[in-house]
Amino acid sequence: MPMDEQQQIIDHLEAHQAEIVDWLKAFLRIPSVSADPAFTQGMHEARSFLVERLRRMGLAGVRLLDGDGEPAVYGEWNGAPGRPTLMVYGHYDVQPADPLEQWRTPPFEPTEIDGKLYGRGTSDVKGSTAIALEVIAAFLSVHGRCPVNIKVFLEGEEETGSPSLRTIVARHRDLLQADAVLSADGGRASASVPTINTGARGNAQLEVRLRTALKDLHSGRYGGGVRNALHEMARLVASLHDADGSVAVHGFHDGASPPTDRQRADTAALTYDEAAFFSDVGGSPHGEPDYTARERITLRPALDVNGLWGGYTGGGGKTIVPCEAQAKLTARVVAGQDAGAVIRSVLSHLRRHCPTGCTLDVVAINDGSPASTLAPGHPLVRAAEAVLERETGMRPIHVRLGASVPVTSIFKETLGIDTLMFGFNLPDEDVHAPNEFFRLQSIREGTRAWTLLLAELARHSPAEFHAAPDGSVGT
Amino acid sequence: MPMDEQQQIIDHLEAHQAEIVDWLKAFLRIPSVSADPAFTQGMHEARSFLVERLRRMGLAGVRLLDGDGEPAVYGEWNGAPGRPTLMVYGHYDVQPADPLEQWRTPPFEPTEIDGKLYGRGTSDVKGSTAIALEVIAAFLSVHGRCPVNIKVFLEGEEETGSPSLRTIVARHRDLLQADAVLSADGGRASASVPTINTGARGNAQLEVRLRTALKDLHSGRYGGGVRNALHEMARLVASLHDADGSVAVHGFHDGASPPTDRQRADTAALTYDEAAFFSDVGGSPHGEPDYTARERITLRPALDVNGLWGGYTGGGGKTIVPCEAQAKLTARVVAGQDAGAVIRSVLSHLRRHCPTGCTLDVVAINDGSPASTLAPGHPLVRAAEAVLERETGMRPIHVRLGASVPVTSIFKETLGIDTLMFGFNLPDEDVHAPNEFFRLQSIREGTRAWTLLLAELARHSPAEFHAAPDGSVGT
Repeated sequence: MPMDEQQQIIDHLEAHQAEIVDWLKAFLRIPSVSADPAFTQGMHEARSFLVERLRRMGLAGVRLLDGDGEPAVYGEWNGAPGRPTLMVYGHYDVQPADPLEQWRTPPFEPTEIDGKLYGRGTSDVKGSTAIALEVIAAFLSVHGRCPVNIKVFLEGEEETGSPSLRTIVARHRDLLQADAVLSADGGRASASVPTINTGARGNAQLEVRLRTALKDLHSGRYGGGVRNALHEMARLVASLHDADGSVAVHGFHDGASPPTDRQRADTAALTYDEAAFFSDVGGSPHGEPDYTARERITLRPALDVNGLWGGYTGGGGKTIVPCEAQAKLTARVVAGQDAGAVIRSVLSHLRRHCPTGCTLDVVAINDGSPASTLAPGHPLVRAAEAVLERETGMRPIHVRLGASVPVTSIFKETLGIDTLMFGFNLPDEDVHAPNEFFRLQSIREGTRAWTLLLAELARHSPAEFHAAPDGSVGT
Repeated sequence: MPMDEQQQIIDHLEAHQAEIVDWLKAFLRIPSVSADPAFTQGMHEARSFLVERLRRMGLAGVRLLDGDGEPAVYGEWNGAPGRPTLMVYGHYDVQPADPLEQWRTPPFEPTEIDGKLYGRGTSDVKGSTAIALEVIAAFLSVHGRCPVNIKVFLEGEEETGSPSLRTIVARHRDLLQADAVLSADGGRASASVPTINTGARGNAQLEVRLRTALKDLHSGRYGGGVRNALHEMARLVASLHDADGSVAVHGFHDGASPPTDRQRADTAALTYDEAAFFSDVGGSPHGEPDYTARERITLRPALDVNGLWGGYTGGGGKTIVPCEAQAKLTARVVAGQDAGAVIRSVLSHLRRHCPTGCTLDVVAINDGSPASTLAPGHPLVRAAEAVLERETGMRPIHVRLGASVPVTSIFKETLGIDTLMFGFNLPDEDVHAPNEFFRLQSIREGTRAWTLLLAELARHSPAEFHAAPDGSVGT
């Protein structure tokens, strides 16, 4: 595609920034929280809203793809025969908004303040999803065609670990054939240096319930003489890590590829203010002593308790010996690890350490997805490098994400295709936390970059994407 | 008072059992939860209800006694000059009803099933409070007089540790002068053997909040690299006890009088099915190895976490590193201990073990009350022995309560008078738990015994109650 045609798209997007933001705001007002059944209606509304958008922009075959969970929204444009077919991935579900009282603006009423758009899902990942859709819409609107073939795939279960994604792919394998995936999820690692995501940690989830009695007991009548579910749960949780923050679970690190020299060098090359990274959130560095902070959160597995509760949590006091405690945990896994085996090592540890007189039940377990990786010479990586270098004048460095994007490994496993994460969010945007925001400037930067990327990818033959080396070993 | 006059009271109470139960049910329908500000109206209603009752039964000076917390309800009858003056103590507040979903009948709709009355407060302690009031009412109704002078004092903060009781007493010291206290709180230890409560553990409360960051963090972005508030709180809680259940806090046992031979013998003499005591509630014995189960829960201090929470506790998962965790704790203390010093030893322990990078704040601390004790030869004990032996044909044994009745130590400390706990609840009635109940038969037994007790106490001179030996040492 000639440069002036690309420029026309960029100019068109520039001229329509206000409409783009308006549409994004409408998308953000829909409370599509996949984790909580109370938001079923929000999930339904989000799908209807996207179906309407994909149809209006001129995609064909717009429909829901069901896998017995939250369906994905799908649409395609196949007008570039001989050119690569790119699956454009985003997700329409968002994290729960709790704790609500800590939001300074309503989570589902997007609010602009000083160039930032606040609201649940702004950064993760409705903002970047909108960028991808607007670029496709602009190509179709201005030129009536795209540089490549497009299959838009918008998932509804990213925030819950994509439990039915494999089923969706299995049921629609032919429809979803593509040469590669461009993901709107998986953002930028730095505001000052251009980065390319060449991989992400995988994750798996576990929720357990520990019981010590049939009912809560009066702490005067029983205190000092019976097991207390919160004491026992605390002992179990405390046993998961050593004092330095290293995971102390037997088998937890099994399979984890040690970081290569190149990965350690790339990780070190990412200039960022480590002190600010922690002090901005009031946190303090803590973890495996032999690794830098950034290595710990991108190249090493991790185990976190995400929620824990038991006993009386209301106002004032209640003098009970609680009979039950519950905990939610997630493991982050790295290249070489089997996420299911890792989370089961945690469960085995808990069971092994659970004393007589207590029962430990699994409330939920989700094998999740392995880590994903992309080789440095992959055409997706080279195309992204070309675009980012042209846009910024700097040579992009390769980084890995600490967060998980299960879709990348699931598409690799089920369809044999690689994913480039090309989201435009930034690390400080409070995703999964109160007061999540997205920079409005990122919409401008993102729509420019996606325009150039689609044109750049059109220069490769479809076969090149499949001939790329496997990035999962030694990169 | 002649025996036939006592019998007339007993016959009168027998004839009015249905009305007694109806009045108790109306009392139970009032949700007087002192711990939770949402129940302010229930507290107010309970007071109005009791004021009306005390006036109707013919007490004088009926009024609320305020100490800047929940006021106490007061009324008196002073028509027995030269006879002892007994303060009759009960409390109108109840524990919170959570977890609501575990109740089989509505907590504030008293429900009779198989001779048991189910509902929050039935056993603790509206049932026994009703017994005391009905006996006084019967004396006044049948004979126009009581065997002793009576000062009814119904507290509204027993379930929250009686924070304003000292203030109430200080403001109304002259009004509250009495020779001894008869408490409707502090129940029976056995359904088969008559027992007399000669003491109770004291207690103190602490609520702490631990923070590791300003906000919840994305577990992908930060997991493995920062402190997790739930991991740290779990380590703190786990450090409070040894694996065998012994409290591991330096200074926690300071001052605790070792159980005397007599106390150990009395404790051993209480025949009860220890296996059933635990298996009935699905619990398993756990605690200091050198003590029997019953010794642990009556003669030894104890430390329990009553509630703990942090992070995401809703449906599904949320991949965060929680920034905050909170815990409620209570200590039970025994004779010789300073409850405030004990709870501060716990706080010191938590602060000492709280690592750099975490902040530990005190949400609430309540010095509570010390343990209470009553000497074996005290006229209150002798009167209770006479009544119970006459009613059961068995020699009552002396027991101590594991639960705390702060009023006993506060009245001792502020007014210099001793308390006999003469409640009629039984240990299996699920106080502080769902499905609390009170046996209807206990109303019959309790009203008989209180009738005889008031008559028996009238045989003592007022001075005898003050000359009684101090029970706090070596008994």
